[in-house]
Amino acid sequence: MNEPTFVIPLWADLIAVGLGGIQGALFASGFRGERRLDLLGVAIIGVVMGMGGGLIRDLLLNTTPVTLQSNWYLLTATLAALAGMLMAGLFHRLNAAIVGLDAVVIGLFGAFGTSKALTLGLPIVPAVFVGVCSAVGGSILRDAMMGLPTALMHVGSLYAVAALGGSLVLAGSYAAGLDLTTASIIGIAVTTVIRLLAVIFDISLPEQRALYRRKVAVETSAIPIVKS
Amino acid sequence: MNEPTFVIPLWADLIAVGLGGIQGALFASGFRGERRLDLLGVAIIGVVMGMGGGLIRDLLLNTTPVTLQSNWYLLTATLAALAGMLMAGLFHRLNAAIVGLDAVVIGLFGAFGTSKALTLGLPIVPAVFVGVCSAVGGSILRDAMMGLPTALMHVGSLYAVAALGGSLVLAGSYAAGLDLTTASIIGIAVTTVIRLLAVIFDISLPEQRALYRRKVAVETSAIPIVKS
Amino acid sequence: MNEPTFVIPLWADLIAVGLGGIQGALFASGFRGERRLDLLGVAIIGVVMGMGGGLIRDLLLNTTPVTLQSNWYLLTATLAALAGMLMAGLFHRLNAAIVGLDAVVIGLFGAFGTSKALTLGLPIVPAVFVGVCSAVGGSILRDAMMGLPTALMHVGSLYAVAALGGSLVLAGSYAAGLDLTTASIIGIAVTTVIRLLAVIFDISLPEQRALYRRKVAVETSAIPIVKS
Repeated sequence: MNEPTFVIPLWADLIAVGLGGIQGALFASGFRGERRLDLLGVAIIGVVMGMGGGLIRDLLLNTTPVTLQSNWYLLTATLAALAGMLMAGLFHRLNAAIVGLDAVVIGLFGAFGTSKALTLGLPIVPAVFVGVCSAVGGSILRDAMMGLPTALMHVGSLYAVAALGGSLVLAGSYAAGLDLTTASIIGIAVTTVIRLLAVIFDISLPEQRALYRRKVAVETSAIPIVKS
Repeated sequence: MNEPTFVIPLWADLIAVGLGGIQGALFASGFRGERRLDLLGVAIIGVVMGMGGGLIRDLLLNTTPVTLQSNWYLLTATLAALAGMLMAGLFHRLNAAIVGLDAVVIGLFGAFGTSKALTLGLPIVPAVFVGVCSAVGGSILRDAMMGLPTALMHVGSLYAVAALGGSLVLAGSYAAGLDLTTASIIGIAVTTVIRLLAVIFDISLPEQRALYRRKVAVETSAIPIVKS
Repeated sequence: MNEPTFVIPLWADLIAVGLGGIQGALFASGFRGERRLDLLGVAIIGVVMGMGGGLIRDLLLNTTPVTLQSNWYLLTATLAALAGMLMAGLFHRLNAAIVGLDAVVIGLFGAFGTSKALTLGLPIVPAVFVGVCSAVGGSILRDAMMGLPTALMHVGSLYAVAALGGSLVLAGSYAAGLDLTTASIIGIAVTTVIRLLAVIFDISLPEQRALYRRKVAVETSAIPIVKS
């Protein structure tokens, strides 16, 4: 309705959905033992990761979910999840691929969330919040459905900080007069780079009182609970 | 607002809500030990199962939740949950009743979700998606609130496939020219039959690589985690 | 849009958000071992508790989330979460503070949810439901994100009953002709007092069949799962 000026082109949105679907399926197919999922379960996680960010964004903005207005989103997410499953069979160590894709996906969803919120006239602080929720919402849903502790809370490697940084830079650039497309590209780059640097250099936030480090790998963070 | 042509009569909607409430309370009262719920907890799970499907459907469609527009939905869900609690005391083995009711409930919610989405003009793929989310959404909420692994992901007995099959047949029949009421009845039947056959013949989807089977019973799927 | 007559003043809303933020951070910083959160995790839980009730209320009512229409809500929730973290360092036993604050917070969110629903014209039963969901929604989100069993289901000390009681009294007083502000103040008081009395006198609901009691303290309820 009031989104005529909204700027995300369909192809960009579908790339985010597709990468999210692949990433989700790669992640979900990495479990063994009790948490091993059947084929449908892996596909569902892929779809959740591909569609989740956009759905949460549109729920928070109280707009009709864009991802349900055309057949393309679900078809893309599903095909991407299937591709992710096949690719999972080709790799022994998936962590690098999972983490790398994840960095790009949270960058894309964060930027799309923030820029859509700004376009709809939200003030800068809630616009950044919507961006962060879009970026990390898919993984929160994924962890809840897989019975894992929320990675966001425990991974310790600036996961949400990366999304927050990119969204802040995007919103700041836009407030400073940059056009939304350029600001979005900068925001995506900032999130992706922060996330990758955090993983590469094993940086984590200080705990409340103690200052010990955890291993960063995605699967590692789940292991204490899996015990299968 | 734009739902004058929407076809679910109140009595049909209330039947779905009531059966969902009974099923939820039966399920929730089946736990012992650490996961045993107090009376209010059982009632809450009943209400969640009775109301969850409709709420998720209307959130995804960005329409005002129908279930909150009249007193009847909540009263029905609550009374049904109380009835479910009382019935739970009469049976020793609840699995047959739980699984049978569940098959009908996911059929009803799936059909109502898909048909409402079609009525609102959604394309066929997202309409089917909304139907599946309506069908399985209540049980996802239930499992999350009870701290159980999402049954959908682990039960392995074509739980979501049943919802998907019925929704696809409904949407296909409607696209082929059938009226929505007839298509909905067919869809409900397809979902219920697939789900019951899957349970009776212990059919499950292949895992990603291995092909082993799990026991299908609802409670069984929860046991590895419960360990009470 | 259709909320010109809606009565919650911004300062009252921000008090609820702030108290929720403090309470969430106090709660989240009380965990040790495997569930210990880093600084960002504690802040996130604070924001979730401060913003969750209002977001869930507005999602159920299908209105644009008020908490995202100004910068103040998120700033308040974030600052309150930081304050909660600092305060957590000053106390050894946090339970009294956590439980006391919690009683006030569920009273405020319950009353705001019920009164907003009544203002928007919902019937009395769903208006009470929206109030209860607003009151307990933040803690459900918190528990889901922290991988804890839903406190609502297991704490056993009339947690949801307190929210239900206050919402019922509010809606009843309003239906009996009282103005909404007075009814809301009464509702807040009823919820807070019920919740505090339940904790002080260690009252819990009967289980389904057995009648044994559990210790009420918030952390205690989590311990059987934490095992860190």
